[in-house]
Order: sequence, then structure tokens, then C-alpha cells
Amino acid sequence: METHDKRELVDLTAGVAEAVKESGVKGGICVVYSMHTTGAIIINENEEGLLRDVLVKVAEDFPRRGTWLHNLVDDNAQSHLAGAYLGPSVTVPVEGGSLALGEFQSVFFLELDGPRPERKVIVEIVGE
Amino acid sequence: METHDKRELVDLTAGVAEAVKESGVKGGICVVYSMHTTGAIIINENEEGLLRDVLVKVAEDFPRRGTWLHNLVDDNAQSHLAGAYLGPSVTVPVEGGSLALGEFQSVFFLELDGPRPERKVIVEIVGE
Amino acid sequence: METHDKRELVDLTAGVAEAVKESGVKGGICVVYSMHTTGAIIINENEEGLLRDVLVKVAEDFPRRGTWLHNLVDDNAQSHLAGAYLGPSVTVPVEGGSLALGEFQSVFFLELDGPRPERKVIVEIVGE
Repeated sequence: METHDKRELVDLTAGVAEAVKESGVKGGICVVYSMHTTGAIIINENEEGLLRDVLVKVAEDFPRRGTWLHNLVDDNAQSHLAGAYLGPSVTVPVEGGSLALGEFQSVFFLELDGPRPERKVIVEIVGE
Repeated sequence: METHDKRELVDLTAGVAEAVKESGVKGGICVVYSMHTTGAIIINENEEGLLRDVLVKVAEDFPRRGTWLHNLVDDNAQSHLAGAYLGPSVTVPVEGGSLALGEFQSVFFLELDGPRPERKVIVEIVGE
Repeated sequence: METHDKRELVDLTAGVAEAVKESGVKGGICVVYSMHTTGAIIINENEEGLLRDVLVKVAEDFPRRGTWLHNLVDDNAQSHLAGAYLGPSVTVPVEGGSLALGEFQSVFFLELDGPRPERKVIVEIVGE
């Protein structure tokens, strides 16, 4: 997956739901996992204004600072801090062969240090 | 489940522990999942003062703002933002047929935009 | 596991990866779970400066306050609040018999109220 902005939300819901159907698992759990320390996976409503609000809130809560020690190595400490707080995965139940998301829930990859040419997300499903 | 306040913590521990026992699973994992974008699941100690402290902290960290774009659609952007940060689920190991919570750990539904007549939480257990 | 400072990050990655190998599970998920309400499990890069930045950020975001009600019971409300926000576990896919961490991802126990003589973390693996 390619990302295009410094901070960006990419809706993964359709692909994750399809992976669940293809797995043949009827009851179990589905983990959506980002392999990146400067990205996160979150669940929220896919409403355009809200997605903008999330990006604004994250930028405010994790601002760049010259005093972060990691910024002497690689100037993205603030992206790592946001990733550590928000977490690399979500876990969603699978019921009746489908992803058991609520009516307003979508699954997003949250880019925290883009743009990047290749971001990898694993969808892992366990159950019966 | 019905909630009664704008923000509220509902202790789900007894019901989750019972679901684990009824599942017959001896070793595995248990996911407690909220189907709502304006709710969250957290684990903490069930001490009355601390529960009040959590609600105060969340209200401070995610205040209402007229400038959130989502508030033009539905006046609860701050509730969604808190839900995105805190997350819709917790995952707890099952060992010896029981939920492997630590001595002071309880599982809570955190209402972020109540009161609501019906909040749904799924308890999904996988293992053997 | 013993911890030595008020706040401290302990890299658990090698032990978790070994537990996955020993389990014989080829595809599935691995949950790393802290049994403590004043600890958390996070994933981030093991870079010395960044680890210091995480501890500084957590101390800033969850400062001690005389007005937390839980501090009348046990003077560590701020540690509990950080634990509730950051969460007691991470869930990582297992693929090809190995923990599917990204190149820069390590798994840490985050001590929020140390030093403590004994902190317990469970590694639970499900799959086939």
C-alpha cells in the first residue's frame, strides 16, 4: 500500500471483510496488524469531517519537538510516539462468517510519517 | 446494555468470566469488543475514586470543540476521537479454563457519548 | 520480571519470539499480556533515544496530581490512567512459525509505577 501525505487515513474495511469471507472461518477473531512503528490501526466512522478531525488531533497531541532524542537519529520521534500510543493493531470478532463490525465502524491504517511507497498490513484470522 | 450518563464505566468482568467458563475453552484468548465508535473497552482497577479519575481525564483530553468538522454533522466528534484513541477492544488470555486477569484488573465498557438505550459488546473466545 | 525505575521499558521481543517457536504454531496470533493495571505493553523501535522520549512523553501526559481521587487510596492514579490509555496487551500475527514483527518493531513492557519486584507477562499463542 502506498501513502501520499504526512498523515493519512486509509480505509481497509472492504479488503479485511473479503479476507474473512475467503478464510472460511465462521466464528473466531480477525487481527489487522501494521508492520510499521510510525503507523497505527484504528477503528472509527468513515465520515469525511471526522477523518480530518482525527488527523488534526493526532498532529496536536504528538507535535514535532527539537528536544526529542530520537530526532537526532531520524526526525520522526513524534510519529513513533503516536504509533506507540495508538497501537499497531485492532482485533475484531468474526461471527457467522463475517467481520462483526458495528454499523458505523470502519478499519483504518493511520499513516503517521508519510508519504511512503510501501506500507504492509497483515490480516490474520483464527477460528473455525 | 443501557447507559445512563454522558461518560460512564460499566464493569463487564463477571459476565466475561462466565462466558469463558461456559465456552469450555481451557487455553486460548478472549476478545471483548464494543460495536460502537463512541465507546471503548478498557482494563483497570475497579476502585470508585479511580473510575471518577478516568472519566475526568477523558473529558479533559477530548473536550468538545466547535471547530471539529464532525460536529457539523453530529455533535460528538470528541466522543469519536476518544474512541479512536482508546480502542474498541481488549484481548485477555484464557488459562486453565479461566480468564487470566491480574488481581486488580477489571474489564470495563467506557461510554463516551451516553446515555444510550442499547450498547452491544461481543465476547469472542478462541482456543481449545 | 523485576523492574528498577519509576518508569521503564523492558524489551520482551526475544522471549516472545522464542515462545512462538516453541509453541509449534505455524499460522495464528500471539498475545503479549501484562497482568498489571500500572503497566502496559507497547510496540515500537528499540532505539535508545526513542525509549527515553517515550518515558518523557508518558510522564508529561499523565502527571501526578493531588486532586486525583485514587491518590487518597494509593498515590498512583497517574500510573493507572496511563495503563488504561496504553493498554495491557498487544496482539501480533504468527506466520511461517515466526512472530510477524516488522523490521523495526520490538515488544516492550512499560513499567508505569516501579520499581517492582515481580511483574508478570503472559504470552498466549493460538493457531495451527
